[in-house]
Amino acid sequence: MAQQFLDLAQRLAEAAGAVAMRYFRCHGEVDDKADESPVTIADREAEAAMRALLAAAVPEHGILGEEHGRERLDAEYVWVLDPIDGTKAFVTGKPMFGNLIALVRNGRPVLGVINMPALGERWVGCAGLPTTFNGQSVRARPCGDIAQAWLGATSPFMAKTAETAAFERVRHRAKHAVFGGDCYLYGLVASGSIDLVVEAGLKPYDFCALDPVIAGAGGLFTDWDGRPLTIASDGRVVAAGDRRMLDVALALVQGA
Amino acid sequence: MAQQFLDLAQRLAEAAGAVAMRYFRCHGEVDDKADESPVTIADREAEAAMRALLAAAVPEHGILGEEHGRERLDAEYVWVLDPIDGTKAFVTGKPMFGNLIALVRNGRPVLGVINMPALGERWVGCAGLPTTFNGQSVRARPCGDIAQAWLGATSPFMAKTAETAAFERVRHRAKHAVFGGDCYLYGLVASGSIDLVVEAGLKPYDFCALDPVIAGAGGLFTDWDGRPLTIASDGRVVAAGDRRMLDVALALVQGA
Repeated sequence: MAQQFLDLAQRLAEAAGAVAMRYFRCHGEVDDKADESPVTIADREAEAAMRALLAAAVPEHGILGEEHGRERLDAEYVWVLDPIDGTKAFVTGKPMFGNLIALVRNGRPVLGVINMPALGERWVGCAGLPTTFNGQSVRARPCGDIAQAWLGATSPFMAKTAETAAFERVRHRAKHAVFGGDCYLYGLVASGSIDLVVEAGLKPYDFCALDPVIAGAGGLFTDWDGRPLTIASDGRVVAAGDRRMLDVALALVQGA
Repeated sequence: MAQQFLDLAQRLAEAAGAVAMRYFRCHGEVDDKADESPVTIADREAEAAMRALLAAAVPEHGILGEEHGRERLDAEYVWVLDPIDGTKAFVTGKPMFGNLIALVRNGRPVLGVINMPALGERWVGCAGLPTTFNGQSVRARPCGDIAQAWLGATSPFMAKTAETAAFERVRHRAKHAVFGGDCYLYGLVASGSIDLVVEAGLKPYDFCALDPVIAGAGGLFTDWDGRPLTIASDGRVVAAGDRRMLDVALALVQGA
């Protein structure tokens, strides 16, 4: 079963990636089409392509997508889709955008794909299996001292002032902070090249795919209260390569 | 002459890129070698490779490099080299690092290459010629309204508090801010996919190569006082695709 769903998830990644690449860097060439930006069109078409594959293969499964809403969310299995994560990167011509595909079982993510079509890179995570990056297994790295930590975030400015302040408490303790990256940052935690990501304001289609990728590499991924992520989590997340790092980061975001 | 130096600059880019890629993502495999990180070794070897090519081709020219210091800075032509720009990206496994090669004539940059070896992408700018991206000419885009502007910076946190405050004045007026990217951001100005970059703390080897790339695409690149950049500039820079945008950004960083 796992293999069948893994194969399906990879086919979804191929389909979404192909659509995204058709529109990437097409400066305004489709812009004149009634207020629609290339990224909007790409987002919608990429999700439609994935939904068509799901409808054919697993019509009984639920779907939650960024663009086309929700179907059968009470099903045992629900696919959670972000056709283009990192829309600002996409729009500005940076190749750091991804297609995110998650399979959620009874609310918990059990399979995740981070597909980077412009880079030709892909992380695949599945409960019970080691996470792979382009087919090779990867491991998060140990780092228990936040003074030695490489911290990542797409931006240090969160939607809420209190969230930005929480991030700042972490940043001031970390060795280095790197910005930009969206889903890629979480892949880097799985690959053991950064130690910590702290973000807020993520939607289920932003974070569900990340969970199995990080978990399958030995990393940790929770909400700011330290709870495992579910499809209903509030979008404030911490990813860490080491449990000690997670504990320190959670204490800091909680105000300690 | 221009063609001869262009060919030489491209050979430097190939050489530096090849060295960088040998060490990219080599997690600690060379780490145990006496305190030397892979990026330090890669930086030094890449610059040495470029210096060897210059010594053979143009021994009378000067060289200013990040790693191996300066030679003949009083020569008419000086090559300014950053073997790996974006060392934090390199270290964290992000492919957004570049090799920067500039030729400076009597203090002013006249030729610049932004080479992105992990992406297989390259901008080339040369006084009097259109800037190219992977061989195709590119143009900066017009945008006179900062409320519509896409602003980029590697990080919003500059070394000095006053510089961070200046950046914040710009950021609060821009439509969107994107972080991360180092030299890539300036290439995106040349390619017309972002409107503005505001940064401080750059060294001559960080900014000299950017100048001809931006200028040859019709963009503007100055210090925070609006002066053209020279090898002696203070490293506070603004890049804009449109003169009106430059003027607004300069007024903001100057405190207006």
